[in-house]
Formats: sequence, C-alpha cells, structure tokens
Amino acid sequence: MREVLAQAAFQLFLERGFERTTVDDIVARAGVGRRSFFRYFPSKEDAVFPDHERCLAEMTEFLAAADDGDPVGAVSDAARIVLRMYAANPEFSVQRYRLTREVPGLRTYELSVVRRYEQTLAGHLRSRFGADGDGALRAEVIAASVVAAHNNGLRLWLRSGGEGDPEVAVDHALALVREVWGRPTAPAAPAAPEASVVPAAPLAVSGGSGGDGEVVVMVARKGTPMWRVVQQIESAVGEN
Amino acid sequence: MREVLAQAAFQLFLERGFERTTVDDIVARAGVGRRSFFRYFPSKEDAVFPDHERCLAEMTEFLAAADDGDPVGAVSDAARIVLRMYAANPEFSVQRYRLTREVPGLRTYELSVVRRYEQTLAGHLRSRFGADGDGALRAEVIAASVVAAHNNGLRLWLRSGGEGDPEVAVDHALALVREVWGRPTAPAAPAAPEASVVPAAPLAVSGGSGGDGEVVVMVARKGTPMWRVVQQIESAVGEN
Repeated sequence: MREVLAQAAFQLFLERGFERTTVDDIVARAGVGRRSFFRYFPSKEDAVFPDHERCLAEMTEFLAAADDGDPVGAVSDAARIVLRMYAANPEFSVQRYRLTREVPGLRTYELSVVRRYEQTLAGHLRSRFGADGDGALRAEVIAASVVAAHNNGLRLWLRSGGEGDPEVAVDHALALVREVWGRPTAPAAPAAPEASVVPAAPLAVSGGSGGDGEVVVMVARKGTPMWRVVQQIESAVGEN
Repeated sequence: MREVLAQAAFQLFLERGFERTTVDDIVARAGVGRRSFFRYFPSKEDAVFPDHERCLAEMTEFLAAADDGDPVGAVSDAARIVLRMYAANPEFSVQRYRLTREVPGLRTYELSVVRRYEQTLAGHLRSRFGADGDGALRAEVIAASVVAAHNNGLRLWLRSGGEGDPEVAVDHALALVREVWGRPTAPAAPAAPEASVVPAAPLAVSGGSGGDGEVVVMVARKGTPMWRVVQQIESAVGEN
C-alpha cells in the first residue's frame, strides 16, 4: 500500500507538477481513501522520498555495530548505504533529481534529510573521538566532508542520467576525504610517538630553482591518522 | 521601516510563538499596512533572519576581490563575515538561536541559508581550482568543511549564551580545516617537487615498543598544500 501510494504520487508529480497535485488526486489514482495517505506519509514531500527513513534506520544500525578502530572508514561505509538506495532504482532516482531541482519545497525537504544523515555520522564520530579537546569539532567537520564527497559523486551520476556505476565516483570522492582525515589507528601501539617533525632547517632542495627553498622533514609511523601528521607538521613549521 | 518590522516581528515571536503570530499582528505592532511587510520580507521566516541577504552579498563581493594565491584562506575569511553578523548583536543572536531550535520551519529555513553560503564558498573554490581533475570535488568538500567548522564555533558561543568573543572558537575551528586543506602556494616556484616521500623502509623507531615499527619519511617544501603532502604520503606507503 505504501509503495502503491508512493508510485501514484510520483507519477502525478511528473504529469502535473508537484504543486498542482493534491493528496486527493493521489488517493484517487491509487484507489484508496484519503486517510490511508496520511497513515504512511506525513506530507506530500515525504511521498517523494519514501526510502530515507528506512535508510536512516539502516545507517544507525550499521554504525552501532561498527568496529571502533576506523571511525572515518565506518562513516564512509555508512554513507554508501544511501548511495545504494539511489543506485537500486536509477530511473526513479534521476527523475526525482530533476523534479527536486524544480520544486523549492522538495529541495528544502532534501536539505533536512541530508542534515539528518550528517548528524547521524557526526554522532558516531563524536562517540568514538570522545568529548575532550577537538573531538566534537573533528566529528562535525569529517561528517560534513563525507556527506559533501558522497553527494558530489552521487550528483555526477544523477546528472549523467544514471549511466554506469555510481560507486566509482563515490568511492573516489570518499577516498579523498579518507586520505586527509585518517586511517585506522594500529591497535595497541602505545609507546612510539606517532609522528615527529624535524624543525625546518633551511636546506636547498635538489633541483630547486624557485620559492624559498625551505623544506620540512617528517617521520611518521605507518597507520598514524593523517590529521595527526598534519597537526605535527603545522606546529613544527610554526605556520599557525 | 525594514528594521522596525523585523523588531516588531521578533518581539511577537518571543511573546506568542512563531506559529501563533500572524503578519497582521506584526504590521499592527509596527503601525504600518500589511503590504509594507511583504515589500520587505517574502515570508515570516525571512523576518527572523533579516541580515542574511546582505551578508551573502557581502561574501560574494569579498570573494570576487580576493587574491588568487590562497583560496582556502579566502573562503575562511569569507565565513567570518557571517560570524561578525552574529557577533554584532549577541542578545538577538542567542534569542534567535533558541527560537530556531523550537520551530521546525525556522530550522529548515536556516538550512537553506547555510546551503547558500556553502554554495557561494564552493563556487569561489571551483573557480580557483579549475574544472579539471578533482577541482570541483575538492571545492565542495572544503566548502562543507569550512561551513561545518564555522558553525561548530558559532554554536559553542550561542549555546554559552553569547558570552565572550566568538572569534576565538571559530578561528580555532577554521585553523583545523586550513591545516588539512592547504596553505597559500608559493608564487612562481615551478621546478622543485612540492613533496616527495621516501618509500617506507622498515626502520626501528627509536623508543618504539609496539606496532609494526614501520615509518615513512617525508620531505616537503614549506608552503606545499597539505592535501598534496597527504596524497604523496598515501601513494608512497601504498595504503590506498
């Protein structure tokens, strides 16, 4: 019944436009009573995105079961749940993308949904990073980066008309975030410093012909989270 | 007149609640006709955020005049324009923050505004990074990071009741993004490689007692964008 209503609604939105379609039109097309619609969907907007609630629930469940060792990897994988929901029905996803571009109310609705995904990812990262220091800040910035990267890849695919495999573009985009924000930390490696930086002695770079010729030399354990490496380099070269 | 209407509207929203206040209530309080309201504000929601349009215009102007050498710095500075708008009127900003938490329609409105800021920043970065390769992807991820960092600092200040200087938290948050995503590139330095990585020979780390003991040694020119350093390290250690 839910499926039938969502399909009837979407057909009408494409035929007549979102604004000009009423809930009465939808229930007439689906052959059910008006109350049935509101039993399944709080609003017309919700009928355009019938799978996001399920997807959010799946994401929450996935993250609750995720390993502690690689939080950035876990939220990247969680974002892929959304991608798979779009990829499962390319034609519908592309038509909906076009419809959403044209209807301000649907764009706003979509922003709210995206924000909920982002908050779900950030909540997971916060729980793993802890409340001390920059944990919450890093959680929010990384969650926003993952969502932006995911949506960049997803949009490329939607704009291309849903041709090919959207996973390629999304994997590439998420890899960029992961490069910057970290790798799984090696388990149980407490004693060695994660990364250290030899403060910049002004050396000539072999083959260098421009710039100021100063270099930094950085030594890091493999598996050190990239943000930590970056932090160390920055503080050593004193460019804060 | 615009100011008078916004103030009357906001007082009423605090006294009676946003939903229970009509445009007629607002114009009666302000002592003007109904049409005057819609001359200045498309909707009740717009009256709650009377400064965002001006702020967006200022941001666009600022970015158009920004130097080419440091696009990440430019968008960070552009985000600070929004912060200064909030900081100029702490009491109003804090009351509005509380009101917005309670009214779903205002939260959605705010998300649309934040999205417009993000797109303005991303547009600037895209124009500087160019369309080739990962230019658009990096632009969108960095814009999202800057917005998330800015909002983290701003929210800390709003939640604290607007005490103290919000610039401290926002500067700290934006510095984190900047550390990761880049510094101004040195002008006219074509010949020397930006960064190179000595592929990981399995060396013992002095004092190391755990983990696998492998290290990477990285040599980079000062001023190399951090994402480039990260890319080089990642590709050298082969953990992609």
